Amino acid sequence: MTDETINIEGAVCAPSLTHNEQIVMGHGAGGRMSQQLIQKAFMSAFDNPALRAGDDAARVESNLHANLAISTDAHVVYPLFFPGGDIGKLAVCGTVNDVAMLGAKPLYLTAGFILEEGLPMETLRQVVASMKSAADEAGVQIVAGDTKVVQKGKADGLYITTAGVGVVREGVSISGANAKDGDAVILSGSIGDHGIAVLAARGELGFQSSLQSDVAPLNHLIDAILDASSNVHVLRDPTRGGLATTLNEIATQSNMGILLNEETLPVHPEVAAACEMLGFDPLYIANEGKLVMMVAREDAEKVLAAMHATKYGEGAVIIGEVTAEPRGRVLLKTALGSTRIVDMLAGEMLPRIC
Amino acid sequence: MTDETINIEGAVCAPSLTHNEQIVMGHGAGGRMSQQLIQKAFMSAFDNPALRAGDDAARVESNLHANLAISTDAHVVYPLFFPGGDIGKLAVCGTVNDVAMLGAKPLYLTAGFILEEGLPMETLRQVVASMKSAADEAGVQIVAGDTKVVQKGKADGLYITTAGVGVVREGVSISGANAKDGDAVILSGSIGDHGIAVLAARGELGFQSSLQSDVAPLNHLIDAILDASSNVHVLRDPTRGGLATTLNEIATQSNMGILLNEETLPVHPEVAAACEMLGFDPLYIANEGKLVMMVAREDAEKVLAAMHATKYGEGAVIIGEVTAEPRGRVLLKTALGSTRIVDMLAGEMLPRIC
Repeated sequence: MTDETINIEGAVCAPSLTHNEQIVMGHGAGGRMSQQLIQKAFMSAFDNPALRAGDDAARVESNLHANLAISTDAHVVYPLFFPGGDIGKLAVCGTVNDVAMLGAKPLYLTAGFILEEGLPMETLRQVVASMKSAADEAGVQIVAGDTKVVQKGKADGLYITTAGVGVVREGVSISGANAKDGDAVILSGSIGDHGIAVLAARGELGFQSSLQSDVAPLNHLIDAILDASSNVHVLRDPTRGGLATTLNEIATQSNMGILLNEETLPVHPEVAAACEMLGFDPLYIANEGKLVMMVAREDAEKVLAAMHATKYGEGAVIIGEVTAEPRGRVLLKTALGSTRIVDMLAGEMLPRIC
Repeated sequence: MTDETINIEGAVCAPSLTHNEQIVMGHGAGGRMSQQLIQKAFMSAFDNPALRAGDDAARVESNLHANLAISTDAHVVYPLFFPGGDIGKLAVCGTVNDVAMLGAKPLYLTAGFILEEGLPMETLRQVVASMKSAADEAGVQIVAGDTKVVQKGKADGLYITTAGVGVVREGVSISGANAKDGDAVILSGSIGDHGIAVLAARGELGFQSSLQSDVAPLNHLIDAILDASSNVHVLRDPTRGGLATTLNEIATQSNMGILLNEETLPVHPEVAAACEMLGFDPLYIANEGKLVMMVAREDAEKVLAAMHATKYGEGAVIIGEVTAEPRGRVLLKTALGSTRIVDMLAGEMLPRIC
């Protein structure tokens, strides 16, 4: 037992984590409970500048002539295969995207597999092939890996944890903390596709759907964006917790307000229908091939044009702006003209969506 | 379905993996079946020079002024706590050691957590504190992390996958492929401690034991070794599959013979007793704080002296030599004077030992 442990246990004002509390599904949902878990359980122990920045990837200083971006993601999506993708594609794209969101060129991935005894070899082959295909598209190499097997019933088919290393573009400083008053907020395409596609694969929609997950590597899109403008302040992929949660994180990190225009939010009709039926809000549904960004207003149009010329940016639109007030808040101007607060995801929503 | 998949499926002469085969525990044991799995399922898809080198960490060329070492390890040890360590310490040391075994200075770690619903928060706190403590001792930062939660029964408490990035020492070229005829084989201490300590924690020994796992970060020991000699050819930590498996890997990679002297092999009396009772051979039991190395014979004594001056190298001994023949084989000269072949671990031995 180290001093650190005692410090953690001695911390007062922990909003929710007491000594006997257990991990619940909400801790993995990417919303507030996840943040509390990170703050209480991990940040207090691991605290360092790179972690503290709170971005999807860590930019690390070194004695090298460039900064590296390093990131990791564990993947436990259920089911393993869903329309438009599978756990392997997800594991590669998730980490490629996290590295790229720092304005870095992803170069190298690692992959740690936890396999359940009894997993059909063919399933593994398909997943690995899918990883390879996604890595090729992204232009990254999977340079290290590890495999563990656990007894039947101790995992759910397979879990994959990837880590990624990239080199940060020179002169680029992108962070969730860098949103500026007046910045345009650009979204690269429709929201909620991934989450609803996975629900469909679970048979939970109650109707036939042709919807595909949007899972995709976004690093080439980001290259196009950064080539078009040197005034990109924030890049983030709204995964678990959805766009609402990601924007709340940025509003908090930057201590800025964000005002969204509901009418401009692109939502696929099938996603809208599913959400209406199931009582979900597309703003909280996970995406795996979308990014949201803040860019100086004067560069917004040329960035949009550059995005429209790419495969994964065709549907890019301006969805709002960064405002000085109310600091740390996300507001939505509804189609009816009223304005409501958009909070971050609270508790659990769709478990094991990625 | 990509061309890669078709190529994999079309591969002939796969020694054991057929279309309908399932993952079994042996695939995770670190021996031959693991190698086959890697060859068949992963190497064929991900093939690149860094993976092909077959070392514990990947040395990756970049446009930077130094080479990076990148590695990953998934950890599923059962139970989570055992004499001398826990899954957190293991997760940090395992990856630190893999990076360091390339002659690199480990700098940055990532950690992906898969948590089972219902895990006591206190357990997580202890594990995280243990990670922090091990990271501090090793002098590395955990710069990125991710947490997923799965339903009760879909994991076993928690699993941790770490990845590590380090900078390779200038002028150093260390690889399992570099063993040279006449090299001394040095082992840093007693073998089998980790595996038997975990068995003790499972209550499978049938007697009380004071044995502790040897889990430890070895990067400072490696610094001392590399400061002492510029003729270090191989560094490897004999984890899953034990010393026998690691030496077989090196013999194969280097296409050299290795001759061990049984009388010099350090085995703790309690490990020896446990192995005798349970029918195990300490050569196949996992270690988590030991390294085996090949160094030019003329530097062996000064390397030993440097090792003896460090915390984790006190028990270092010369256990054998590299020989030109028989190529790719490990031989053991027994205490009785006979010589037997030491093969790599076949099939499953101790599941979830790390």
